[in-house]
Amino acid sequence: LVLFAGGVSAEQGDSDISAKLERMEAEIAELKSRLAQKDESDAEQESDISLLSQKLDEVSAGDAPFYGSAFENWSFGGYGDVHANFNEGDGSDQFDFHRLVLYLGYDFSDWIKFHSEWELEHAYVSDDSGGEFLIEQAYFDFLLSNEFNVRAGRVLTPLGILNKWHEPTLFNGVERPSFAKYIIPTTWSSDGIGAFGRLSPEWSYEAYVVGGLDGSKFDDVKGIRGGRIKERPSLHEPAFTGRVDYRPVAGFGGGDLRLGVSGYAGGLDNGNKGSNPGIDGDIRIASADFEWSVSKFDFTGAVAHTSIDGAREIGNGTAEEMFGWYLEAGYHIWPEHWKKGKFAKTDMIVFARYDDYDTQYQMPFGVAANPAGDRNEITLGVSWKLTPDFVVKADYQIREDDSDEDLNDGINLGIGFTF
Amino acid sequence: LVLFAGGVSAEQGDSDISAKLERMEAEIAELKSRLAQKDESDAEQESDISLLSQKLDEVSAGDAPFYGSAFENWSFGGYGDVHANFNEGDGSDQFDFHRLVLYLGYDFSDWIKFHSEWELEHAYVSDDSGGEFLIEQAYFDFLLSNEFNVRAGRVLTPLGILNKWHEPTLFNGVERPSFAKYIIPTTWSSDGIGAFGRLSPEWSYEAYVVGGLDGSKFDDVKGIRGGRIKERPSLHEPAFTGRVDYRPVAGFGGGDLRLGVSGYAGGLDNGNKGSNPGIDGDIRIASADFEWSVSKFDFTGAVAHTSIDGAREIGNGTAEEMFGWYLEAGYHIWPEHWKKGKFAKTDMIVFARYDDYDTQYQMPFGVAANPAGDRNEITLGVSWKLTPDFVVKADYQIREDDSDEDLNDGINLGIGFTF
Amino acid sequence: LVLFAGGVSAEQGDSDISAKLERMEAEIAELKSRLAQKDESDAEQESDISLLSQKLDEVSAGDAPFYGSAFENWSFGGYGDVHANFNEGDGSDQFDFHRLVLYLGYDFSDWIKFHSEWELEHAYVSDDSGGEFLIEQAYFDFLLSNEFNVRAGRVLTPLGILNKWHEPTLFNGVERPSFAKYIIPTTWSSDGIGAFGRLSPEWSYEAYVVGGLDGSKFDDVKGIRGGRIKERPSLHEPAFTGRVDYRPVAGFGGGDLRLGVSGYAGGLDNGNKGSNPGIDGDIRIASADFEWSVSKFDFTGAVAHTSIDGAREIGNGTAEEMFGWYLEAGYHIWPEHWKKGKFAKTDMIVFARYDDYDTQYQMPFGVAANPAGDRNEITLGVSWKLTPDFVVKADYQIREDDSDEDLNDGINLGIGFTF
Repeated sequence: LVLFAGGVSAEQGDSDISAKLERMEAEIAELKSRLAQKDESDAEQESDISLLSQKLDEVSAGDAPFYGSAFENWSFGGYGDVHANFNEGDGSDQFDFHRLVLYLGYDFSDWIKFHSEWELEHAYVSDDSGGEFLIEQAYFDFLLSNEFNVRAGRVLTPLGILNKWHEPTLFNGVERPSFAKYIIPTTWSSDGIGAFGRLSPEWSYEAYVVGGLDGSKFDDVKGIRGGRIKERPSLHEPAFTGRVDYRPVAGFGGGDLRLGVSGYAGGLDNGNKGSNPGIDGDIRIASADFEWSVSKFDFTGAVAHTSIDGAREIGNGTAEEMFGWYLEAGYHIWPEHWKKGKFAKTDMIVFARYDDYDTQYQMPFGVAANPAGDRNEITLGVSWKLTPDFVVKADYQIREDDSDEDLNDGINLGIGFTF
Repeated sequence: LVLFAGGVSAEQGDSDISAKLERMEAEIAELKSRLAQKDESDAEQESDISLLSQKLDEVSAGDAPFYGSAFENWSFGGYGDVHANFNEGDGSDQFDFHRLVLYLGYDFSDWIKFHSEWELEHAYVSDDSGGEFLIEQAYFDFLLSNEFNVRAGRVLTPLGILNKWHEPTLFNGVERPSFAKYIIPTTWSSDGIGAFGRLSPEWSYEAYVVGGLDGSKFDDVKGIRGGRIKERPSLHEPAFTGRVDYRPVAGFGGGDLRLGVSGYAGGLDNGNKGSNPGIDGDIRIASADFEWSVSKFDFTGAVAHTSIDGAREIGNGTAEEMFGWYLEAGYHIWPEHWKKGKFAKTDMIVFARYDDYDTQYQMPFGVAANPAGDRNEITLGVSWKLTPDFVVKADYQIREDDSDEDLNDGINLGIGFTF
Repeated sequence: LVLFAGGVSAEQGDSDISAKLERMEAEIAELKSRLAQKDESDAEQESDISLLSQKLDEVSAGDAPFYGSAFENWSFGGYGDVHANFNEGDGSDQFDFHRLVLYLGYDFSDWIKFHSEWELEHAYVSDDSGGEFLIEQAYFDFLLSNEFNVRAGRVLTPLGILNKWHEPTLFNGVERPSFAKYIIPTTWSSDGIGAFGRLSPEWSYEAYVVGGLDGSKFDDVKGIRGGRIKERPSLHEPAFTGRVDYRPVAGFGGGDLRLGVSGYAGGLDNGNKGSNPGIDGDIRIASADFEWSVSKFDFTGAVAHTSIDGAREIGNGTAEEMFGWYLEAGYHIWPEHWKKGKFAKTDMIVFARYDDYDTQYQMPFGVAANPAGDRNEITLGVSWKLTPDFVVKADYQIREDDSDEDLNDGINLGIGFTF
């Protein structure tokens, strides 16, 4: 019985085992076939990886041609300003490729960085053109800490708003505010050395000692604009300039706010190529500015006061004091539900700006003011940002001065872009 | 018996099973070892992939420095024209880095694109040089459909062949045809806005309204060449210009054919910086051109007729009508079996061109034609394209005009390239 | 018994088998689970690879915008020289963005290569500026073998040291040696064609036939400097110029040595735009130079002798012979243990240089020498290479000439960089 049972159990066991074995054999076969598939898929992956690696080598080879160092040490960018200006009456109507600018940057190390701006004005330079090709900025940053860093070279004199942030996607209006042309003569570059940093999340500053202005080129209507030295400034009488900005982290009134104050003080006996015109005088400029974006509104404005010692001796109708300010309000009108398709990143701002600027604000005793120096300007316009980097602009400008002849009103169309 | 049989069958079964088990164990062992290999190979692949990923991050980091956007939004290119000109008799012999040009493009979005051409002429610009640095093209394309797109900015006036397609690898001869210098004053840029598109696979067009020419700069021998405004054109009297091209998809006579007609019509009271010279006149130009490549031959040619209202008032010997044409035949002589090694992509074209151009074709009543304005030119030469982007050129030019003194013949050597 | 044994053995066998089967089943289960893991890891790798491939496509897309060809055919670089010059007495003090230079290269094929140098001098070019924008080099190399290659275009005249290797990280002193300004008028470009190569690991050469100088612009104090033609040189009277350099592979005295000799010989009846001033004369210059770095010392120097036929006829006080030389010794003082952190790649060299240069060395019979032409200059300074590509320089220069009035001494500060 036992045996029988044994026999039976063996037989039964055998058939169990056989079934098991069959199942296991099938499983092993399946495992084999899956492993074979894996072999195939691994071979494919291997070949994918080697192809990727080869392609990557080709792409990386693209870095090689950069002479001094690798591609990632370079940076590129630029901006442009294209204008069509139409003026009433006998005023001129012109097309102007006003500015085409390339930025070029290079990192010499993680703490020494170069930044430069190469500007072609009016699209044409020759020996009898009105165009210019020049370096507006070219400076070296020595990054030491959040709070204190050194900057040397050609910097944008840090007064007001537009002189420092002058890309056309950053301001409304085809032309820059006239305040930023005649009171703070934008674009105004200075050559020197200084410091910059962020003292806290809210407070930042920059301060430089630079070559001073050429006082002999000041005049009644253009103010200090002619005094900028674009080439090789004399270092005879230096100037000091700087600014402090405050950006409350929590904002202000539910919006983004920036408040800035800036100043400039220096001598005027400087010319090109190290020559000195022999001017005995000096200049002080104090300015304040703000930008406040709240809900769909943008408010911005600046004010500046200039005082000149030696204005009488300088002559050319140079004033003892100049003064100007502007205030602008903009409103974002592009509806949210239009932000799709071609217009996914589109914005549109309508704005109004009032500019008041007087280059004959306070005259030396006994010198008559030229009433053409006391001007104001109303600008009504629209900025259509098709993309954040590309803006089409249109505006109407009503201009007045204190003289009997009125200034021409004008219509301006423009395209501005950064890249 | 049963038991025995059972026993036997069990025993026999056991040995079968044992064999099977052994085989299966071996298979399992093999599977294990193959899986272990897979583990290894997978670990290797894992590390390969992570290395690739790291490298790719490094390479991608190269994109970061582009300010406004990523590297792939930019495009770069350029071309250059180097000449050595030798003239018979008292003519001058000179080396001339005539043109070095950089192209810069940027895509603001998939439908707004910028293209610009920065040209340095004669390799030197200063306050007393003959060289120039200028923007020859800088326009924005707004891509809307195949058939209709908008273009705004500085465009190449779309007349004839050379003004639009002026890269030195695209034409034979060291110097451009004189027709393309005095009848269609190449390179001629215009500032304005217009449309372009492809109406079918065979028909394409472009059409613009642009700032007009300065008629006060026209003259007897150079024709309308001086009337181009390179800087800030007045928008006082606009001009309309456009072209239509036909390229039969099936070709023509077994070859590639392009036929084009182009035109220009506009006022002449325009100057630089929005000033207007006070010219009461207008101009109309009609032109046709073709390019036909068939077998080893290239045929190309253009004709243009210019009529000017107010020529008498303009003076300077300006004609009422100007007329010119040229015809060129080229033959590809580089043998197929020489196209290997250093010369794998080499081509060589011998050509002959006849230019006939008369800037004094029809004079105002009572004004005598200057016979120096009626000229023709035979050019015999060779273009050796070492690569499709790099060509060495040589030619001999026989020049004649209607005056008693003959023009100097000349030999020209040149290198042309695009990149 | 047999049966029993059979029964027993069968039963024992069964339990063995069962155990084995259980073990095998467990193993199969484990294999299955490992394969399942592999499936997962393979799927992950697959997705990693496909992500990498996608990213790579995006990065590679960055190549596409290069017009003529792929990104890897281009090369970029540049250098810059920023100076602040302070002069004693009535001398001028100026800031000068003296040079900003971009290199652009392009490979048309593996044997045809283009290299160009675009230089902006004094940061400003307009119709009344002292600045310049020019092409200092632009040549095509046709690479044929180590020993013999062809170069055509605008090359740096290969005389002395500085004219060829003029990047500010390659020499000590804010300003280039005066020898390299008045005896070998650096930077001096010539247009022509020639050959270059390396005859052995030790010997290299270059030799060209180029457009000659304009003798009518020579004078007493600036020597041949005014005779360079920057724009379109006449090819009326060619010049031949070349150099040979020897660099002993084993070095010299345990240091790196380079010895060079160079020469120039040609006619002087050449002007701009192919015009010829009508000068009947010619010039020969012979020069030798060396650079030797041994231990912490750098020694460098050059000498040149110029002889001019027709000096009397040229006038302007042009001498029959000019002669000059300079010798400089530098010592690397930056301690090894300071080379860490921000200063990991920093070096500092103190140096002394003596320049002796006389543009009135031998006068035509009966013409008096201008004693202001016979000058010498001692320069003591320091070059602080914060990185190998970025150097801050300072030096003091004591200048003398043979006239009664002494030259102003000066202090120079500078930043030089290459990228």
